[in-house]
Amino acid sequence: MSKIDQYLDSNAVRFEGELCEFLEIPSVSADADRRDDMRRAAQWVADQLRRMQLTTEVIPTEGHPLVYAESPTVPDAPTALVYGHYDVQPTDPLEKWTTPPFEPTRRDGNLYARGATDDKGQLLTHLKGVEAWMDVVGRLPVNLKFLVEGEEEIGSRALEQYIAEHADRLACDCVVVSDGNQFAPGVPAITCGLRGIAYYEIHVTGPNRDLHSGSFGGSVTNPANTVAQILAKLIDNEGRVTLPGFYEDVVSLTDRQREQMAALPFDEQEYFEQIGVTGAVGEVGYTALERRWIRPTFDVCGLWGGYQGEGAKTVLPAAAGAKFSFRLVPNQDPAKITEALRRQLDAWCPPGVKIELVQHQGGPGVLVPQDSPYIEAAARAIEHAFGRRPVFTREGGSIPIVTTFHQQLKADTLLIGWGQEDDNAHSPNEKFSLADFHRGIKASAKLWEELGKC
Amino acid sequence: MSKIDQYLDSNAVRFEGELCEFLEIPSVSADADRRDDMRRAAQWVADQLRRMQLTTEVIPTEGHPLVYAESPTVPDAPTALVYGHYDVQPTDPLEKWTTPPFEPTRRDGNLYARGATDDKGQLLTHLKGVEAWMDVVGRLPVNLKFLVEGEEEIGSRALEQYIAEHADRLACDCVVVSDGNQFAPGVPAITCGLRGIAYYEIHVTGPNRDLHSGSFGGSVTNPANTVAQILAKLIDNEGRVTLPGFYEDVVSLTDRQREQMAALPFDEQEYFEQIGVTGAVGEVGYTALERRWIRPTFDVCGLWGGYQGEGAKTVLPAAAGAKFSFRLVPNQDPAKITEALRRQLDAWCPPGVKIELVQHQGGPGVLVPQDSPYIEAAARAIEHAFGRRPVFTREGGSIPIVTTFHQQLKADTLLIGWGQEDDNAHSPNEKFSLADFHRGIKASAKLWEELGKC
Repeated sequence: MSKIDQYLDSNAVRFEGELCEFLEIPSVSADADRRDDMRRAAQWVADQLRRMQLTTEVIPTEGHPLVYAESPTVPDAPTALVYGHYDVQPTDPLEKWTTPPFEPTRRDGNLYARGATDDKGQLLTHLKGVEAWMDVVGRLPVNLKFLVEGEEEIGSRALEQYIAEHADRLACDCVVVSDGNQFAPGVPAITCGLRGIAYYEIHVTGPNRDLHSGSFGGSVTNPANTVAQILAKLIDNEGRVTLPGFYEDVVSLTDRQREQMAALPFDEQEYFEQIGVTGAVGEVGYTALERRWIRPTFDVCGLWGGYQGEGAKTVLPAAAGAKFSFRLVPNQDPAKITEALRRQLDAWCPPGVKIELVQHQGGPGVLVPQDSPYIEAAARAIEHAFGRRPVFTREGGSIPIVTTFHQQLKADTLLIGWGQEDDNAHSPNEKFSLADFHRGIKASAKLWEELGKC
Repeated sequence: MSKIDQYLDSNAVRFEGELCEFLEIPSVSADADRRDDMRRAAQWVADQLRRMQLTTEVIPTEGHPLVYAESPTVPDAPTALVYGHYDVQPTDPLEKWTTPPFEPTRRDGNLYARGATDDKGQLLTHLKGVEAWMDVVGRLPVNLKFLVEGEEEIGSRALEQYIAEHADRLACDCVVVSDGNQFAPGVPAITCGLRGIAYYEIHVTGPNRDLHSGSFGGSVTNPANTVAQILAKLIDNEGRVTLPGFYEDVVSLTDRQREQMAALPFDEQEYFEQIGVTGAVGEVGYTALERRWIRPTFDVCGLWGGYQGEGAKTVLPAAAGAKFSFRLVPNQDPAKITEALRRQLDAWCPPGVKIELVQHQGGPGVLVPQDSPYIEAAARAIEHAFGRRPVFTREGGSIPIVTTFHQQLKADTLLIGWGQEDDNAHSPNEKFSLADFHRGIKASAKLWEELGKC
């Protein structure tokens, strides 16, 4: 056993304690009342980096602060940029949490807390991987830059701007991102494709006040009716988005690629049982895995209007709205989607109401070449820690910032997630397996060594 | 000036004080936490009736109590049953009220409070009409029965049952109901038709927890998508409800009847300006008045699901729902509508979700014959108080209980509303004109006299 691995073993308990400390900070980026907690979380990350002798800055932005750090220079070694985020999703519905979201709790080998897997727990593995090298060897075998943001869950606006303005400072040979899942328990993965996203909100307003649905109904356009009609029109009976041109830029997979995907150890029936639904649904002509990874889709994420309380209220609401997203695949362009959506809303808006469109997030999908030496280095590091070679997969979610790394830094991105599908990222009872936490740290420490050889 | 009218004049200030007292009781029937306030409101009505020497009972029910009273017998005079309700609509959105809903406030000749026009203010006019006769003359010129409920806004379940079981006790020659509007300011009306209602709630449930819309989206039926699709399918592009057989029993008006309706002093443009919308919308081929009075329609009253907070949350919600109503016209049968709806929901329910249907209210529309002597008596009483003969109109809203009176008591119903269209019934800033309140009392006192002559 290497000295590094020994160090990790003997410090495992402390690492878990530090993770709990990090998770106790309620850093919900979407919540305007949490600005102080956001600053605390950024400071916590910066303190960790400074203690490991990295040159560290907390960078104020118009939104939540960035944390940037650089390790002492290692001549002739490549440079990796490690990205993560210290912000977390909102916690509602709060009543569905077994234990409070910001009181990390151990159960059955897992740690339950908002942000456990997304992304505090995963981010921390890379900090601890560095710590092991600095404490045991006194130096890293590779040049590392850390870039940690607090706006991943709300669109990464500050980070996008920082990268655009500081591409030279961030120059690197590859980017390391752990903000996703393994393929299955015991089956680690390197994710070579991500879907993009285009997330919107519509506000439909009609009469100048809530009206009695009896006295007025039939003669006035009902904003809640309109919301339903607009959303329903965006997808057809075969699960296909109806926006004109939506599929124009979608790259189809080759038969060979679809065969490889079909060969992955994925049991559709088990998948549906796990999330409690019966049977396959979605775009006609594709498997469940394809619908999640290589096909774009449309989901309503939020819906509101009128009376939501107990009993019956006969109201024709003055306003209603919805949040929804399109998941995009390479090469769909979010800007083109926005344009098409805006045109359709104009065309579909019935007389008597107004539709306001707000765009929240937009980022295209991304593909990583599987033949890069950095991917091979990551595969070796993962095999060292997890005991088996990773599979190469895609992921249905988006990390829009990964696209930016591709475009602005021209660097390969290693998407090596330590989470599990059932970790409840974005849901109540989010968790992270403590075994995966420690394997992630071990893989990270090994990754610095393997990248150093590239 | 008659002695009765003099009495009303000299007690006007006290009447307003008593109305304020009544309005201060937050008797929201839909709110399970208001049971004590409901009892207080019932007791308040009963105390009023007892003070006027009516034999009065507060009748407990499984829901909110009923108040029943009978005046001392007047031989050879007809009997009128006066109906009203002491319950009020919920107050949300509370932040839109200029003054608190249960702190009655005078502004510009109006009294603002939840229940001011619907129905506490209007109900009180009939109590004060009785009081005048008892105090000035010592007896009434007609036999009166009062039946006042606390569940009008939530379906009148207890009242329906009480009427079914006590038709003999409630036997009468006509029913008097003031729970609606005049045709326009200065244009009193007798409403000879009401639309019916069928009000439902659907709960759509899918996966066993909220899911990340990226990781899962496309492969799982989204309950919020489903809600939108179901609601959108219920009405077509021409404003017609799509349920099979929905229009089968609708009685079309004769050309003559449509001409009479078109002759009413109704300015569509002014109507739309008042509610802040531009231009006419609704079922193709009908005027705004016809769409409100003689045509059935479909309105979403409430809509919910997923994330409604600030910013973007990429969630595929585990559940979503909606409240909605069909407004019915004579002779549509709510039971047939429920059956058709249930069949369509079964047919439309996509795989992977369940749809639960809850029915809240159901009652057919009603028509009152214009040639009844009681209608003529009401017309004379209204002319006495308002200074002009009433027009004969319809109303888009429902008083399902009026249908029950027709069916169970075989009595004509006099629908004589003292409210105004812009009184904000069911909306924030509900009000009642104090001038209409006093004219209503004057008309009521005269009505007892006119009915006594029938």
